[in-house]
Amino acid sequence: MAEALAGFRPDRRTPAEPVPVAGALRRVPARPVIAPHALPGFARSTVDGYAVRAADTYGVSEGLPGYLQVTGAVPMGPVMDSGPAVTVGPGTAVSMPTGGVLPPGADAVVMVEYTQQVMPGTIEVVRPVAPGEGVVRADEDAAPGAELVPAGRPLRAQDLAMLAAAGVTVVPVHARPRVTVFSTGDEVVPPEAATLRPGQVRDATAVALAAMVTQAGGEPVPGGIVPDDADALETALRAALPASDLIVISAGSSVGVRDETAGVVRRLGPPGIWCHGIAIRPGKPTLLAECAGVPVIGLPGNPRSALVVFRLLGVPLVHLVGGCTRPPPEPAVRARLARDLPSAAGRLDVVQVRVTDGVATPLFGLSALLSVLTAADGYVIIPEEATGLDAGTEVEVTIYS
Amino acid sequence: MAEALAGFRPDRRTPAEPVPVAGALRRVPARPVIAPHALPGFARSTVDGYAVRAADTYGVSEGLPGYLQVTGAVPMGPVMDSGPAVTVGPGTAVSMPTGGVLPPGADAVVMVEYTQQVMPGTIEVVRPVAPGEGVVRADEDAAPGAELVPAGRPLRAQDLAMLAAAGVTVVPVHARPRVTVFSTGDEVVPPEAATLRPGQVRDATAVALAAMVTQAGGEPVPGGIVPDDADALETALRAALPASDLIVISAGSSVGVRDETAGVVRRLGPPGIWCHGIAIRPGKPTLLAECAGVPVIGLPGNPRSALVVFRLLGVPLVHLVGGCTRPPPEPAVRARLARDLPSAAGRLDVVQVRVTDGVATPLFGLSALLSVLTAADGYVIIPEEATGLDAGTEVEVTIYS
Repeated sequence: MAEALAGFRPDRRTPAEPVPVAGALRRVPARPVIAPHALPGFARSTVDGYAVRAADTYGVSEGLPGYLQVTGAVPMGPVMDSGPAVTVGPGTAVSMPTGGVLPPGADAVVMVEYTQQVMPGTIEVVRPVAPGEGVVRADEDAAPGAELVPAGRPLRAQDLAMLAAAGVTVVPVHARPRVTVFSTGDEVVPPEAATLRPGQVRDATAVALAAMVTQAGGEPVPGGIVPDDADALETALRAALPASDLIVISAGSSVGVRDETAGVVRRLGPPGIWCHGIAIRPGKPTLLAECAGVPVIGLPGNPRSALVVFRLLGVPLVHLVGGCTRPPPEPAVRARLARDLPSAAGRLDVVQVRVTDGVATPLFGLSALLSVLTAADGYVIIPEEATGLDAGTEVEVTIYS
Repeated sequence: MAEALAGFRPDRRTPAEPVPVAGALRRVPARPVIAPHALPGFARSTVDGYAVRAADTYGVSEGLPGYLQVTGAVPMGPVMDSGPAVTVGPGTAVSMPTGGVLPPGADAVVMVEYTQQVMPGTIEVVRPVAPGEGVVRADEDAAPGAELVPAGRPLRAQDLAMLAAAGVTVVPVHARPRVTVFSTGDEVVPPEAATLRPGQVRDATAVALAAMVTQAGGEPVPGGIVPDDADALETALRAALPASDLIVISAGSSVGVRDETAGVVRRLGPPGIWCHGIAIRPGKPTLLAECAGVPVIGLPGNPRSALVVFRLLGVPLVHLVGGCTRPPPEPAVRARLARDLPSAAGRLDVVQVRVTDGVATPLFGLSALLSVLTAADGYVIIPEEATGLDAGTEVEVTIYS
């Protein structure tokens, strides 16, 4: 698994495309976005109070207040193009609202709590302020040329706020990777099938893979259900290559009677199969390939194994192709194992667990059972080098969301 | 904060609406979805091998194999309506693919690895199987009437798979809460404004609030920018009430010169203001109200405080109104504090931090600065009862995503 994650690194990256900031949540900037000008762009007060020259307040105290003449008031909101109409000279103060524009001459704002009007037009100040106190500098939130958001990290709510504040309304992001999802098997029928003949199963995997692709920032493209026929599969895959950044084939990767996927993938183009079979349980028959510049994942035949493998190997590939170099961590909790978990050394085990009051209870059941996955709150990884985990061990449970 | 979270519980819930399963990721089921029939619906093999009567294999071993006559083969895929054409009688076996329909008479499948063809039509079996081995029962994934997904928990990828497997194509979910977001202030201009006059600021908060609403499962409704005018605000809020499940007013909650929000909210209808002022930093001037059946949140005036408060108080309200009783936990990591964090007892502090190599470095800066939020990887909560945290303390950092 570690080799597969670190070693299978296709070069493909989606191109940049401009999107409006309002629709850019979790999109991945293709390059850093730079501040076009200083932010907030003017020195402004952070408190309600009086704009002053800080030096006029040095040494004042409750017992020995300083007295300043109030020569005006800065209104909230925009000021005329010429700037604030009032200025602050020695011995004077100007009334300020929070967020107001600092008038010329002032270098600090003293909070209203530390002042008192002693007569109309005169205040006393009982606490000194240092230069810059009560003030946001014109470039304190961002200097011109500063990086507002980095490339490669999905945009978060506050990143959108910062871009909006800077007047950036369009941001260059990686296009969502188009992930074509195929299901294979003569027995597989669409979920819409009302009644089934014995042996038929509805396609459970495709809708879940599409959901995981979406969560990873990709755009799922339905490939449909392909019968157990090598030529039909090859035709379908070839048709999908030009419009896919990643191709996922569910079922068909198992090395059993019907394994034709590997042969078909081999014919699609170089460099071809990177690995077929990974030391993971469930999910051993997984196939990783790159054909004509498009990464291809072949998933195990049963839905549960397919979903486990796609989460561990497919989601990082969607991130990679989509330029996401800093995906957010998944939710996780720490919990104590309710019982021993055996594992073979050299194989990574993915164990579904339920978490209650800090205790993780492993859920066992055939890998064909989806109900084990739906009953689980999350999963525990037993790494390759471990030969199992003892009951009571503190483990990290990755929580499904 | 704890009182606000536990005590302010408006009754409003969005109604149920049917949505296709393919579009139901993270939607919240309004009621449990029940299995309409058994899943997988037929007993099927979990391995490649031979369907047998388990009793025929009792006592066999490498040294003393059992011999069975192969009377047929179950094909992969659907079988005729009459069921498998072959049956398994005493002393006989039927060849099985993984996933194939168990033929009548068989109660187990022996893996091909434990068999060997000794002559055409005869295999030897070198390991015994118990009844049920190698087989998924017809109702093992879900019995008829079993709960496929619970109400109140956002649907995850595997939940969609389970619904699809059961042929459930439409699921009743809570409608997304419509969250109308207002910005107030004469100085606030839309993000599109190319040039600003001194004192003007672009509306940074609205786009970030909309993003958080979306992440919480709600539907943001842009309310626009309302000037500092009580009548204008009242008109805007009254117009929004009928089409809102939640109203958010950014700016205008601070108890300063321009605080008219509380007065306006009081006039909107009963029961009115639930609290005005919360022991949280940043975010003290927060207002919580319920007017004519619609919860209303008034947020502090600066973007950073507004986003912090909305994350802690607004997001849980979106969940509540949208019927989400089991929201997934947010991503979090444990890290050691790089330095002491002072805090006043009785007040909850939200401290932005950067996390590197397991060390959380607090980011300080004026609460007016958005750049502190964009530089942060996550935040640390200093609870009400603490008077600060010492450097080196292990803390949980909630990671932004």
